[in-house]
Amino acid sequence: MKHHSIIDLIERKRDGGTLRPEELQWIISEYTADRLPDYQMSSLLMAIFIRGFSAEELGPWTEAMLQSGEVLDFSHIPSAKVDKHSTGGVGDKISIPLAPIVAACGVAVPMMSGRGLGHTGGTLDKLEAIPGFRTRLDKEEFVSIVEQHGMVLGGQSETMAPADRRIYALRDGSGTVPSVPLIASSIMSKKLAEGIDALVLDLKTGSGAFMKNEADARLLAETMVGIGASHGTKVVATLTAMDQPLGREVGNANEIDESLDVLSGGGPADVVEITYSLAADMLLLAGIDSDRDDAIARLKKAVDSGAAMEKFQDVIVAQDGNPNVAEDRSLLPGAPDSHEVLAPESGFVTKCDARDIGVAGVRLGAGRERKEDQVDPGVGISLLAKIGDRVDKGQPMAVVAYRNRAKLDAALTLLNRAWVIGPEATEPALVIGRVE
Amino acid sequence: MKHHSIIDLIERKRDGGTLRPEELQWIISEYTADRLPDYQMSSLLMAIFIRGFSAEELGPWTEAMLQSGEVLDFSHIPSAKVDKHSTGGVGDKISIPLAPIVAACGVAVPMMSGRGLGHTGGTLDKLEAIPGFRTRLDKEEFVSIVEQHGMVLGGQSETMAPADRRIYALRDGSGTVPSVPLIASSIMSKKLAEGIDALVLDLKTGSGAFMKNEADARLLAETMVGIGASHGTKVVATLTAMDQPLGREVGNANEIDESLDVLSGGGPADVVEITYSLAADMLLLAGIDSDRDDAIARLKKAVDSGAAMEKFQDVIVAQDGNPNVAEDRSLLPGAPDSHEVLAPESGFVTKCDARDIGVAGVRLGAGRERKEDQVDPGVGISLLAKIGDRVDKGQPMAVVAYRNRAKLDAALTLLNRAWVIGPEATEPALVIGRVE
Repeated sequence: MKHHSIIDLIERKRDGGTLRPEELQWIISEYTADRLPDYQMSSLLMAIFIRGFSAEELGPWTEAMLQSGEVLDFSHIPSAKVDKHSTGGVGDKISIPLAPIVAACGVAVPMMSGRGLGHTGGTLDKLEAIPGFRTRLDKEEFVSIVEQHGMVLGGQSETMAPADRRIYALRDGSGTVPSVPLIASSIMSKKLAEGIDALVLDLKTGSGAFMKNEADARLLAETMVGIGASHGTKVVATLTAMDQPLGREVGNANEIDESLDVLSGGGPADVVEITYSLAADMLLLAGIDSDRDDAIARLKKAVDSGAAMEKFQDVIVAQDGNPNVAEDRSLLPGAPDSHEVLAPESGFVTKCDARDIGVAGVRLGAGRERKEDQVDPGVGISLLAKIGDRVDKGQPMAVVAYRNRAKLDAALTLLNRAWVIGPEATEPALVIGRVE
Repeated sequence: MKHHSIIDLIERKRDGGTLRPEELQWIISEYTADRLPDYQMSSLLMAIFIRGFSAEELGPWTEAMLQSGEVLDFSHIPSAKVDKHSTGGVGDKISIPLAPIVAACGVAVPMMSGRGLGHTGGTLDKLEAIPGFRTRLDKEEFVSIVEQHGMVLGGQSETMAPADRRIYALRDGSGTVPSVPLIASSIMSKKLAEGIDALVLDLKTGSGAFMKNEADARLLAETMVGIGASHGTKVVATLTAMDQPLGREVGNANEIDESLDVLSGGGPADVVEITYSLAADMLLLAGIDSDRDDAIARLKKAVDSGAAMEKFQDVIVAQDGNPNVAEDRSLLPGAPDSHEVLAPESGFVTKCDARDIGVAGVRLGAGRERKEDQVDPGVGISLLAKIGDRVDKGQPMAVVAYRNRAKLDAALTLLNRAWVIGPEATEPALVIGRVE
């Protein structure tokens, strides 16, 4: 590979210029090989943050990150491989019911998820609330579970997109995290390394999301769809509201419980709506159906017939978990004590703040303040009143399952302000838009 | 000192905000104490580069850098302490005749100079062409030579403004060098640490200067004058042209030779004009004279009486050099061979490019390509034709004193294109403007 001068490239980006594909590739490969010091990369990242990245730069940059490590190959599996990614929110357990429903319809779902950090939970932490469930899988195991069951629920491999892992850590330490092109390339490099044919994105916007406003979320959606196109992978993005938590359950065992409800044909309306909407996109992208209504009908049938639940139980077994949680929820971890949050007045819930409730969950022990923290799978918050619901003074709005009084108190300072009650009923937003 | 979050501060500057004095001070002191990693500082420097630094930020930032190390104290010396700084150019030996002339008039001149890097020479390298002359002085010696002789010609101490030294090295490696506020604060932190009452700046602009255009040089001048004001130090800046080399000599011994000419009452008109102009500013700032013409008359008298040359010889002795170079120039190092650059046609010199001639000097061995290079004190270029001069075809335009044929050839590729000859005489620019 031709040698470039890193200073020249930093200066060009600093002054608003454009980096060429071979230069971007060189930067990523030099950084991954420890031949570029962090202080040069962080200065370049700041220049990219402020000056931006054009579509012509973003494609090769993402491609170089995904090529920096192992790339999965599922070409020997005849069915279409489709994954789903969410930018994360509070109560967002969608991946858990979604993957088995879609897999039961004949799409291969090699799902790689993350852990909770900040105010949001992580799919891996939730899955580990199932006794015995193991999310740490090596590459061979990951591929073989997909071969056998048409789906897998694993963690991000250390050998995939190592450039992204290093750049992400550096961004975290250098004040360059909330950049649309850097976020988009980070997510897409990991997802595209999964060797998938198509990807469905759930971009959250609102108080409990990383993107606080819709315009940013839409730009991120368009950017990721563009990266997908330049890689030759079909990507569809749905923008969904994250002003209040998704569903009625926040916490690890709590969210598995609610996911099992959805797989049993029940579950709260918002979780069901988003699960079916994203799942339908996956069937359409996979070419299983060409009509949205047909796809929805097929998904419902997979749930009603018990095929989706059976698929989930098979995968739980394949990943060393106890499949009996499906029938006996008491096998899920719990907490010794519970506390009710009561409505301070009568009226309609006008706010049920996702961020406050998410942080309350973290304080309770359901999430992590720092990467190295352990999560408590049994604690959680059950929401009894959400936006639009009518409450009477003194009526419970939430039940908190807790293990430790001090942690409960820390959570309550947030929960006591999370709800706002007003005189008129308001309709919560859910699906906001789509980018194809 | 209160603890701040570096990420918050980087993010604020990244988004175009303003950092408060105590935050800027904290950043400098943490970085100097090795508690901030380079990758955070370089990301902040890039944000400062692109977003800029307000006058309210620049003062405290410079102050913190100057306070990061030793600050000289000359308060026990009754006379005013005034230094001069040039942003550097080709053939710029002004400091060498200037300091003794001004000191002979009763101003204390604690002059700290630098070494050549890039296409420009350095005052320290030039002084070291005087046999025995020692520029490496410890603090006590530096102060004591000023006490005894009213001037000194030393190098920048390692213990002064260490934050600037580290930040400068990081800027060099992170693509953040040509930023007006960062350049201004770098220069001013070192100069203000000298404990001076006033400072005269010579800001070069043109092909042989770091600032290629006048607007940038003017902005830099205004920025430095502003920093001086916020520190309570009087600063006057002169903008001078650096399209062609200053004077007729480029090279270390060559420039000492020409400096001695000026101290003897001779020397080329441009060097004499700038020397007297800056020297007059120093007398006026020191309060020795209140009228410019009086100051010029006083300076001329110091030269004509031999007092300035005597002052220089005293300081040469104090710094272990051979003072007889003043009378016997053959004591200066020379080169074994010489080569003439001939005019390719008849006409008027319309260009005599400072940058090409400066780089030719470096190729010859008079300057440094890398910091660790040794300079050859004896090689150099004597310019016989400068802008406005009439030349006949075949007439020598320069004489190159060289030691090594390959180096001469490398220099000649530049020298052969440095001159442009046209049909009409043009007047070269010299003093362009002033900022007080």
